[in-house]
Amino acid sequence: MPYELYYWDGIQGRGEFVRLALEEAGAKYIDKARSSSGAQTMMEFLKGSHGHEQTPFAPPFLKDGNVVVSHVANILLYLGSRLALVPDDEQARYLANGLQLTVTDFVAEVHDTHHPISTGDYYEDQKPEAKARATAFIRDRIPKFLGYFERILSGNPAQSDFAIGDRLSYVDLSLFQVMEGLGYAFPRAMAAASGDYPKLRKLARTVAERPNIAAYLKSDRRLPFNQSGIFRHYPELDLA
Amino acid sequence: MPYELYYWDGIQGRGEFVRLALEEAGAKYIDKARSSSGAQTMMEFLKGSHGHEQTPFAPPFLKDGNVVVSHVANILLYLGSRLALVPDDEQARYLANGLQLTVTDFVAEVHDTHHPISTGDYYEDQKPEAKARATAFIRDRIPKFLGYFERILSGNPAQSDFAIGDRLSYVDLSLFQVMEGLGYAFPRAMAAASGDYPKLRKLARTVAERPNIAAYLKSDRRLPFNQSGIFRHYPELDLA
Repeated sequence: MPYELYYWDGIQGRGEFVRLALEEAGAKYIDKARSSSGAQTMMEFLKGSHGHEQTPFAPPFLKDGNVVVSHVANILLYLGSRLALVPDDEQARYLANGLQLTVTDFVAEVHDTHHPISTGDYYEDQKPEAKARATAFIRDRIPKFLGYFERILSGNPAQSDFAIGDRLSYVDLSLFQVMEGLGYAFPRAMAAASGDYPKLRKLARTVAERPNIAAYLKSDRRLPFNQSGIFRHYPELDLA
Repeated sequence: MPYELYYWDGIQGRGEFVRLALEEAGAKYIDKARSSSGAQTMMEFLKGSHGHEQTPFAPPFLKDGNVVVSHVANILLYLGSRLALVPDDEQARYLANGLQLTVTDFVAEVHDTHHPISTGDYYEDQKPEAKARATAFIRDRIPKFLGYFERILSGNPAQSDFAIGDRLSYVDLSLFQVMEGLGYAFPRAMAAASGDYPKLRKLARTVAERPNIAAYLKSDRRLPFNQSGIFRHYPELDLA
């Protein structure tokens, strides 16, 4: 039975971190909410029609038979062992989950660069505040988070150029997506930092060239970045 | 060997969600960074002095022998099975982790009510934006998150008044802390909603009365809420 992924149609958003794991592993899955009936089904889950254990707070969530798992890091924890996208030992799994939760925090901060005041209002209603937040984000937060991940990649005793051990894990796929997203949203800021983060940049290239990921990126399953997702390109929020 | 909890001294903050689990279970632990030498040790971990697998992005992190686990939800996942604070079956653990990650997201939004523009700057430097964000938070986000948790408590087929199954889990302890924190930070908004969230309010009372938690809350191990933590009381951010 294929996995069912539920996520808002039309955007990469947080769903993309799950798609990359499914695609890399060659797992069978249905991106359910990309059809109107699937979108309807997704809303029924959110409303609680499928009972206590299957009422996620928000997409993305994954359905695997009778199990519903919500939140990106939780889904990747679930899929990691099933798809061999995380080392087998328990300690490495907690390490991977901790790194993934750092990605989660960073992604929330990326979102808030264009929505610093209210998620329920339009970007256009909070532009001056967005500029202030994006400025602090580029100045303080990108170096803090990417600097951390760079140290993790550099410090891996396996010297594999991956985050954990000697093989690719779901954390690496998420770091690829972070680098892609930042390059889309803040091209001038990322170009200005082009000499920084060599390990992250190498990892992003390595991931992009993996056969299943390369095929996915060329397919129409990979939605383009746009101004509805998490990573948005508003030139006025980027470095001048 | 006692668990070692590492978290900024002087505040409840995110560390409190871990403390509540350790206290409820009667686990032996040391709140390391409440001594100056422990705070020094914490900084060494953050700088990477203890190697790749023991370099958290930020506190809180837990050290258990040679294992270092970072991020609240990850620590609770780790402790949950060891301290019998989550049901034994795998599905319930993913459910608990998903609920805890919803708490994580909510707590990040609580933080941003007083720091909507920049974590690195003072509240006093972002007061008008904080007022706008807190207004939207009280109007939209408290009802969305608490309404969700209320539905989870109401929908539990075990009818136990806990979030999952028929026993208390770490999720319940975190929901207690959320209700305590909101009552401290936004007393007028929470009083205005005094008829809402009856299940959450009942749960908060139940948790407060559990013998180990009641003893903890009376002890000097429970730091008071203050204006350095996640939940801060700035009257100007509350309902008028």
